[in-house]
Amino acid sequence: MKTIDINCDLGESFGVYKLGQDAEIMPYISSANIACGFHAGDPRVMVQTARLAKKHGVAVGAHPGYPDLVGFGRRDMAMLPDEIEAMLLYQIGALAGICRAEGVDLVHVKPHGALYNKAAKDLPLAMIIAKTVKSFSKELVLVGLAGSRSIEAGEAVGLQVLSEGFADRVYERDGSLRSRKLPGAMITDPKEVAQHGLELAKNGVTALVEGRTVHWAIQTICLHGDEPKAVENARALMNILKPGS
Amino acid sequence: MKTIDINCDLGESFGVYKLGQDAEIMPYISSANIACGFHAGDPRVMVQTARLAKKHGVAVGAHPGYPDLVGFGRRDMAMLPDEIEAMLLYQIGALAGICRAEGVDLVHVKPHGALYNKAAKDLPLAMIIAKTVKSFSKELVLVGLAGSRSIEAGEAVGLQVLSEGFADRVYERDGSLRSRKLPGAMITDPKEVAQHGLELAKNGVTALVEGRTVHWAIQTICLHGDEPKAVENARALMNILKPGS
Amino acid sequence: MKTIDINCDLGESFGVYKLGQDAEIMPYISSANIACGFHAGDPRVMVQTARLAKKHGVAVGAHPGYPDLVGFGRRDMAMLPDEIEAMLLYQIGALAGICRAEGVDLVHVKPHGALYNKAAKDLPLAMIIAKTVKSFSKELVLVGLAGSRSIEAGEAVGLQVLSEGFADRVYERDGSLRSRKLPGAMITDPKEVAQHGLELAKNGVTALVEGRTVHWAIQTICLHGDEPKAVENARALMNILKPGS
Amino acid sequence: MKTIDINCDLGESFGVYKLGQDAEIMPYISSANIACGFHAGDPRVMVQTARLAKKHGVAVGAHPGYPDLVGFGRRDMAMLPDEIEAMLLYQIGALAGICRAEGVDLVHVKPHGALYNKAAKDLPLAMIIAKTVKSFSKELVLVGLAGSRSIEAGEAVGLQVLSEGFADRVYERDGSLRSRKLPGAMITDPKEVAQHGLELAKNGVTALVEGRTVHWAIQTICLHGDEPKAVENARALMNILKPGS
Repeated sequence: MKTIDINCDLGESFGVYKLGQDAEIMPYISSANIACGFHAGDPRVMVQTARLAKKHGVAVGAHPGYPDLVGFGRRDMAMLPDEIEAMLLYQIGALAGICRAEGVDLVHVKPHGALYNKAAKDLPLAMIIAKTVKSFSKELVLVGLAGSRSIEAGEAVGLQVLSEGFADRVYERDGSLRSRKLPGAMITDPKEVAQHGLELAKNGVTALVEGRTVHWAIQTICLHGDEPKAVENARALMNILKPGS
Repeated sequence: MKTIDINCDLGESFGVYKLGQDAEIMPYISSANIACGFHAGDPRVMVQTARLAKKHGVAVGAHPGYPDLVGFGRRDMAMLPDEIEAMLLYQIGALAGICRAEGVDLVHVKPHGALYNKAAKDLPLAMIIAKTVKSFSKELVLVGLAGSRSIEAGEAVGLQVLSEGFADRVYERDGSLRSRKLPGAMITDPKEVAQHGLELAKNGVTALVEGRTVHWAIQTICLHGDEPKAVENARALMNILKPGS
Repeated sequence: MKTIDINCDLGESFGVYKLGQDAEIMPYISSANIACGFHAGDPRVMVQTARLAKKHGVAVGAHPGYPDLVGFGRRDMAMLPDEIEAMLLYQIGALAGICRAEGVDLVHVKPHGALYNKAAKDLPLAMIIAKTVKSFSKELVLVGLAGSRSIEAGEAVGLQVLSEGFADRVYERDGSLRSRKLPGAMITDPKEVAQHGLELAKNGVTALVEGRTVHWAIQTICLHGDEPKAVENARALMNILKPGS
Repeated sequence: MKTIDINCDLGESFGVYKLGQDAEIMPYISSANIACGFHAGDPRVMVQTARLAKKHGVAVGAHPGYPDLVGFGRRDMAMLPDEIEAMLLYQIGALAGICRAEGVDLVHVKPHGALYNKAAKDLPLAMIIAKTVKSFSKELVLVGLAGSRSIEAGEAVGLQVLSEGFADRVYERDGSLRSRKLPGAMITDPKEVAQHGLELAKNGVTALVEGRTVHWAIQTICLHGDEPKAVENARALMNILKPGS
């Protein structure tokens, strides 16, 4: 019997601003990527999200991003390597400190937004991220886009990696995600999301890269928590992946 | 033979902004309280300061403050207990994460500015701080103003505490520090600073509180790193305290 | 025939974070208090809100607050007079700049949250605010709690003032607003909100202050835009106040 | 008789952090570009700098930058056109509000750091900036690098422009500034700075662009206020440019 991880970006509220449906989604996922206060989240939200994850037995990971709250970490920034190292350690450490006080293990790290997307294509950046995660702890798991530089870098430094697939996103033939600026980039029907997630879990991603057919296995499936049907998507995906439950 | 700790608030630079003479002062102190990015400091400055402390064999502590960069954490803010808990864990954790990657132990916690001053007089706030520090680690040492509620709270929760005296500050008869808004609040001559520090180290603080004479021993002496003669003060103090060195 | 102003705090979204129902409420109000980026709002949200107000012929005012995004400007901060002056000019000017480019007049200023509440009781703070608003323009209208120090200060410096009443809040006998920490502080039924607003518009507030009965007329009625029934409240209030429309 | 403007970036301090020698440099310049709180400066610093400029009869301009305090606006950020428009209006307006209260005219706008450098080469960005400045006021003067897209855009929208030369920077043959990452990019001897400034004022910049020799006149000369010899540079430049004074 094969198992697969379902992850979701959570803890993205900030002060009075609510984002996502953390409490509703928690029952249907196995890993929570918690925002660390730079692109989203604040210390109190982080505490509450760590507690919620603990209550549901969901693995906690850090979801560090660029220092750009108003841009939600989705705008690329020209940061130097030592700036990236330091901001990653700061954010991972901040969440780890909260986890320690709450009696929760910090299991994985998944970069957010523009940092995630850039690292997927930029090996030097991916290596900085992988080395920094390892410098915090060799036990941390690094989550990255299947087939990307992030996975390559994580493996190169000897970290355990999880190749990620997106149940609610359409893939291009080259294995990249269709830009959300294009129509039809998101899969919005919960049944289709679940079916796509099952396909990713069973068969991974097959892509045509520089004229060659490549195949990437998927170890964790991401669901977006801020989609209108996020909870239905999560429930449908869990049901299709755990037929016995 | 008795030993005494000399501490200094360091790592207070931010981006292009330089504050303090960290590299020059490090040789003369035994503990560094490193700002954690909320009232001063940024992730890269924190990394650099932790490395500098390691190089000099100086103990590293977290120096968390209010989220008020423009006010340098010196303005009181009406924060709720759970906001204070969360922001302390966040800041302590962020520095702990950096220390972990740099191979440095995090030894102590000393609140900064308005948070330090308020906790000295406000037992409920002091208890929140003490409990939060303990929730991160029972091994952390809590630094607070000698004779204050901070020390009382730290002892109440079972933390090791260090009662702090200020070599370059004038004390009022009730054992409080003379407000810096008043003339003559700072001792500026390095010889006098050293002499005052020696007195604090040997005899502690004697104060008249509600008609009774009280006495507080001092276990750590603070020097301000942003004073014009900060380095001379530190050198003079170390020389007078370590006559054999 | 008497007219009365209906105002609402708008433009409180920030980046990806949405707050309030600005577009839905605009048709039912006559004045919009637009957040200026310190406690809520960002430059783009400010532009969009100014445009929306222009489209609906709604008067635009600045809604400056403490520099505390995570606390939404609801936490008191110990700021110095010159810090308050400067931050008010900065925020008012920022919105005025946007209004100028959009061809919209800046009509009034209404402080936000903890700053509004503190100024209502603290005459020196109220005087700083009134003088600063006047230093920007003698034509600006100052909005403050009816019967408060804010109104007293505005009149003292010669500004036009608008005494504000709250249709969806319960008043205490002394004319203050019941704390939202107490049950029943908010009026939630749209019919009752409208009825309360009508009463405020016609008869103002009658309060018992230090043993004497005082009466304050109301020139502008505030509706909260982030209440669940904010739009229904606004519609009901407008309908009861404009029976001919 | 020909006159030339000397400008300097000022008001770059923030809270307790001091940067530059504003008071010492003011006597030797004719235009001050005041930071607007996004990459440097805070509201109180802006007020103080506007007052200082007024006292010295120095023209005040806005110096808006990216929202990146820790990076001092020197890191490129991927911002959308409407984000750039809004953040420019916000920053220009904020300074204009302070100027209005202080009885100072806002004369010009000069983008800062990465925004300045990017606009120099990127016509669409330069057009957004020029149009936004004009939407605030047709009377504002736009300052840009001589020969750059910024000047081209300013002229295209009909703004008065000032072509800027750098007295303390070395030029490449193509008329661009030598990168500060390269050795010898800065001219550090005050006599040489003054001589270079005089040359720029008299003869402008001659460059080889795509095989053709081009010539750009210079209307304003920039001095960096945070260089070690900034004051000596300013004094020497003023003396060489105003031989009769």
